[in-house]
Amino acid sequence: MRTRVGIIGAGPSGLLLSHLLHLSGIESVVLETRDRDYVEARQRAGVVEHGVAQILRRSGVGDRMDREGITHHGIELRFDGRSHRVDFSDLCGRTVEIWAQTEIVKDLTARRLADGGRILFGARATAIEGIETDRPRVRFTHGGEEQLLECDYVAACDGFHGIGRRSLPEDVVRTFDRLYPFSWLGVLADVPPSCEELVYARHERGFALHSMRSEEVSRLYLQVPNGTDPDDWSQERVWEELSERMAVPGWELRRGPLTSKSLTPMRSFVTEPMSHGRLYFAGDSAHIVPPTGAKGLNLALNDVALLAEALRAWYTRGETGALEDYSATALRRVWRAEHFSYWMTTLLHASGDAFEHRLQLSHLEYLASSRAASTQLAENYTGIPRP
Amino acid sequence: MRTRVGIIGAGPSGLLLSHLLHLSGIESVVLETRDRDYVEARQRAGVVEHGVAQILRRSGVGDRMDREGITHHGIELRFDGRSHRVDFSDLCGRTVEIWAQTEIVKDLTARRLADGGRILFGARATAIEGIETDRPRVRFTHGGEEQLLECDYVAACDGFHGIGRRSLPEDVVRTFDRLYPFSWLGVLADVPPSCEELVYARHERGFALHSMRSEEVSRLYLQVPNGTDPDDWSQERVWEELSERMAVPGWELRRGPLTSKSLTPMRSFVTEPMSHGRLYFAGDSAHIVPPTGAKGLNLALNDVALLAEALRAWYTRGETGALEDYSATALRRVWRAEHFSYWMTTLLHASGDAFEHRLQLSHLEYLASSRAASTQLAENYTGIPRP
Repeated sequence: MRTRVGIIGAGPSGLLLSHLLHLSGIESVVLETRDRDYVEARQRAGVVEHGVAQILRRSGVGDRMDREGITHHGIELRFDGRSHRVDFSDLCGRTVEIWAQTEIVKDLTARRLADGGRILFGARATAIEGIETDRPRVRFTHGGEEQLLECDYVAACDGFHGIGRRSLPEDVVRTFDRLYPFSWLGVLADVPPSCEELVYARHERGFALHSMRSEEVSRLYLQVPNGTDPDDWSQERVWEELSERMAVPGWELRRGPLTSKSLTPMRSFVTEPMSHGRLYFAGDSAHIVPPTGAKGLNLALNDVALLAEALRAWYTRGETGALEDYSATALRRVWRAEHFSYWMTTLLHASGDAFEHRLQLSHLEYLASSRAASTQLAENYTGIPRP
Repeated sequence: MRTRVGIIGAGPSGLLLSHLLHLSGIESVVLETRDRDYVEARQRAGVVEHGVAQILRRSGVGDRMDREGITHHGIELRFDGRSHRVDFSDLCGRTVEIWAQTEIVKDLTARRLADGGRILFGARATAIEGIETDRPRVRFTHGGEEQLLECDYVAACDGFHGIGRRSLPEDVVRTFDRLYPFSWLGVLADVPPSCEELVYARHERGFALHSMRSEEVSRLYLQVPNGTDPDDWSQERVWEELSERMAVPGWELRRGPLTSKSLTPMRSFVTEPMSHGRLYFAGDSAHIVPPTGAKGLNLALNDVALLAEALRAWYTRGETGALEDYSATALRRVWRAEHFSYWMTTLLHASGDAFEHRLQLSHLEYLASSRAASTQLAENYTGIPRP
């Protein structure tokens, strides 16, 4: 099998890359280990940055987001029994869209297939070869057979555990890693959200987040110790703990049946460089952020928008500059998001250190009283156009 | 001996408190362990916040600062071989004064003595008694004799190692403490400054700071490991290291003879509450900040301005509210400065952790490109009016 760009992974980044390349007349093949139903059901992020929403709209896959998603003009911070709203529109003129990653995947998959795109589900990449030549190849198994995908370029959109990163020569890679001493217990609940915007709560018992998937489904998170067993958290206990951590006068948390519980460990991780030879990285294959800043999905989609543009410059105009600069350009945004995610995480999570708790309170009071401090949060949260 | 307010310590906070009380017609006595020459020669801070400069001016002790000090409208950040100026005037409409703590002490001492104020040099406080009564007493030795200072209130302006904090009942005190794994090697040099404003440099070899005492005297600092012996640092080595850490194209560091070398460990420390019974705390007796944000002197002078106002409300109008609120009000500013100092310190010092180094670079690049981020630095550095 032969194509121009071999893409490993049919998550949002692999699919968007294939779609954007198609719009520029560049052929690609997407290899995905799992089947379509599995990929379309994965519950992940749900906040889309201003600029990323624009990318989806401009490439023709934003209609359902604009129809069924919810535009949010701010978030609410809660601490010390009080509440402070960060008004994104007022502070930086941008907004975010509440629209689940899984819906983006559904739209992109349908669109690629309608456009005649080739997505091979159940195709497990086993090796990437020749990345330092101009004829790289991806070996994969599909339907029980070993096959070969020959291409001009390979895009590793295959996540943190994918084969992409493992294919880099050890001596060219530098990794940066930070594990946090806590995880998120995430629940989906069949109950209308108790707030109109996302609520980020800092409490000495631990962080809590109230988010939503739709007008009928709430998405809530609790900071818990690493290694927590979700089964130790009954519905009753989850709702009690959320109520306590998010409490402000006059507000009540609506309760309803939980339809899922899962544990998310918190990690910061970056691989440099984000390209080597003819192999390019996008999304979780190159970087992980803790979910506090809602940056994981957005980084991934920004990566592939940049990569698609660079490939277009090469295929349509013969320019190599953007491809050569891809890693450095992408990493500027990646490190901005890494810093912001680390900052939001340490601002809001209980560390057990009394000095740090006092710093958090002072920092949050400052955020609530300084326009500059609130703007810094707003412009990072909604996505800085060119970091 | 009897007075209204017994003040322990003739550093800047004790002296300014005595002066401000005098302007309100409230008598005080200042006890100081050391002699006048020693106190007036201590080299300490040199950056005066906008609001603190106003306090000095309004109370009539700002003339020499305005004549001989230097108004700075910004600072310079250096990182990654580049430079970014933070323009305080433009960003928040405030400035700072470069004016040494030792000069403030000289002016306040002269003014107190000219006004007939009582400062007992060589008077070592040995005990503070009866702070939970309305007749507190300070025992002290002076000229070889044990003496007693009876007062209405006692102000502990006696620094981190003073007797004030040790006089609090253990069960009312909560302390917050953080030591850093590095110190500052500070030098005074007989050479005109190589820059017009303070330069804060972040380098993988460690932080460096170029400050100044006057147009002929430079004050420079280098991050070094804790326990460093200043004698291990020759003049040559100091200048070489400063040059390397502060290097930007087209800039040269002027060299000259070093007239002093000293080591400053870095610490964050807070005692709560800042008052108990009739004993009140101001400055280092209650809190320590690492010097990176230039907040130590400013916090101390803000503390006593607040305390003087509270005592005035009591003595002149019989109001107790401000005295009762003193600790909570002062601590809001203290924690703002603690957070800012911690932030400046972790932004600029080399920790040896590769992930943190990358976060620093991204943070500094963001500071250099975002008005909101620069404003946050500017408004904290110049002093937030009412945190």
